[in-house]
Amino acid sequence: MDNKIRIGIVGYGNLGHGTELAISQNPDIKLVAIFTRRDPNLLDSKPNVVHISQVLDFKDKIDVMILCGGSAKDLDEQGPMIVSHFNTVDSFDNHQRIPEYFEKINQSAKSSGKLGLISVGWDPGLFSLNKLLGISVLPHGKSYTFWGEGLSQGHSDAIKRIKGVKNGIQYTIPIREALDKVMNYENIDIPANEGHKRICYVCCEENADLARIENEIKTMPNYFYGYDTSVFFISEEELKQNHSKMPHGGLVVRTGTTGEGNKQKIEFNLTLDSNPEFTSSILVAYARAVFKLWQEGKTGAISVFDVPLGYLSPMSGEELRRNLL
Amino acid sequence: MDNKIRIGIVGYGNLGHGTELAISQNPDIKLVAIFTRRDPNLLDSKPNVVHISQVLDFKDKIDVMILCGGSAKDLDEQGPMIVSHFNTVDSFDNHQRIPEYFEKINQSAKSSGKLGLISVGWDPGLFSLNKLLGISVLPHGKSYTFWGEGLSQGHSDAIKRIKGVKNGIQYTIPIREALDKVMNYENIDIPANEGHKRICYVCCEENADLARIENEIKTMPNYFYGYDTSVFFISEEELKQNHSKMPHGGLVVRTGTTGEGNKQKIEFNLTLDSNPEFTSSILVAYARAVFKLWQEGKTGAISVFDVPLGYLSPMSGEELRRNLL
Repeated sequence: MDNKIRIGIVGYGNLGHGTELAISQNPDIKLVAIFTRRDPNLLDSKPNVVHISQVLDFKDKIDVMILCGGSAKDLDEQGPMIVSHFNTVDSFDNHQRIPEYFEKINQSAKSSGKLGLISVGWDPGLFSLNKLLGISVLPHGKSYTFWGEGLSQGHSDAIKRIKGVKNGIQYTIPIREALDKVMNYENIDIPANEGHKRICYVCCEENADLARIENEIKTMPNYFYGYDTSVFFISEEELKQNHSKMPHGGLVVRTGTTGEGNKQKIEFNLTLDSNPEFTSSILVAYARAVFKLWQEGKTGAISVFDVPLGYLSPMSGEELRRNLL
Repeated sequence: MDNKIRIGIVGYGNLGHGTELAISQNPDIKLVAIFTRRDPNLLDSKPNVVHISQVLDFKDKIDVMILCGGSAKDLDEQGPMIVSHFNTVDSFDNHQRIPEYFEKINQSAKSSGKLGLISVGWDPGLFSLNKLLGISVLPHGKSYTFWGEGLSQGHSDAIKRIKGVKNGIQYTIPIREALDKVMNYENIDIPANEGHKRICYVCCEENADLARIENEIKTMPNYFYGYDTSVFFISEEELKQNHSKMPHGGLVVRTGTTGEGNKQKIEFNLTLDSNPEFTSSILVAYARAVFKLWQEGKTGAISVFDVPLGYLSPMSGEELRRNLL
């Protein structure tokens, strides 16, 4: 018998695959089972892939479940259900609905005596921590968030829903001039559409009306309207060859003043080849924290704001102070 | 009666002054008294400046003491003494001696039922948190720290001790080529002297032997030997006019890989007009956390690794989740 933290993964899409890979980089953590709604026999016949209906058979075999449901809809349903039997970590990212989701997880977790950590990843997650840090340390100042350069799944999906489009990829790119102004302490307000431009690579059906498609993209409300948007039509081969990775990143900046107008700047910057693999790596580190906090008696719902960062590490408090402080 | 957190400051040098200014930016925190070893009447006759010998008169009037002792020697003596009567935050920054100092604070604080948070600031402090985050989220990777551009007090003091030197300022500057290699994921080892150069502005006594002084600086072990060091001799007026601010900053970078070699990068970057004012701003935010943790029953010594970041903010958990997650 070893002392490894035993993990279950719920959902076997990009995030679930990434979590499987991330666990293999952490010697103190082991993967027990991956739960899927599909027929596990149709997957790559890994012995640890199990149908979701068997989840309760693992009640005493898993310390923390990492919920990798691909959409807010999955988590809305799965989160409260799973946390009534297991400790959980999830990446719920519908910012506006976080308070409501938190309440649901909290009620379910309080009844079961488990711990549910919600909205882990980089945004929400590490970006949220840095926004909090900036505003707390420099109360007189301004906060900025830039996303990209990176692939936005939501915007890519929006393109794909247009008639005549076979496939599409959208990259969000910070506008250099806006970023420079922020970095130069110009203390301005930058609406999202003045801070970012959008570049779309679209692959269409034969004889599709390209002018109409380009127009539909550029005028789509909430997604593209008001943004500097470029549309490039490319072949399916080119799309597959050059745009199949999922890079992303971004930065959180706080500029502020202290004393007699001394300028101070805090910047947190991510550059990611693979957005889902990075998000999964964060989920796995936080799963370690959830297990430790639960062992100390913590139950209910929590967010990244409630987790001391030392709990993310396999090192003891003494090792951390000696090596990293 | 208000509900503000009541702060005392011990030590009225750069850091103490900065803390006084930082408190004024936080409406939920108030300054009760500043304790000094000097004769308070010789200071600028502020009514709240008190001689250190009166500190015990304030036992029920102060929630958290911010220890602004200018050197490890001050804190070594003051830390354990003050924490036997008050909750404390300090910026103990002698990295190698942190474990020993932690033990002393812990013993004293456990006996008194108080809470002592040690080694707060940006290095140690925010940089430590980011090193921990990097290594925990990207276990397969490499961590780097660069300091500057900024004024190093220790190196400036070392210059001043040389015979014939009246005054001196040393700036630490990251070497661009080394930084570029790190940012390009070259995964190299960079000893401190290959990552930084040193620029010294020195003002000497009349008829001093400049060649000897320059040589003594450049060959000084631990401080300058092995570094690309430039020495400029300037007048006292020029030193005062152009080099009296205390700018600093630096960055912590983690480069790593996930999955099949996808490159990931996390960067935390500070650019500071005033090093002591920024450090004090961090101390004040963490004083808020100390008070909350102590109210919850936490005693003994802790470090930044033990503090949930949500505790730095005056906002409630609910407000934080709604506004910043």
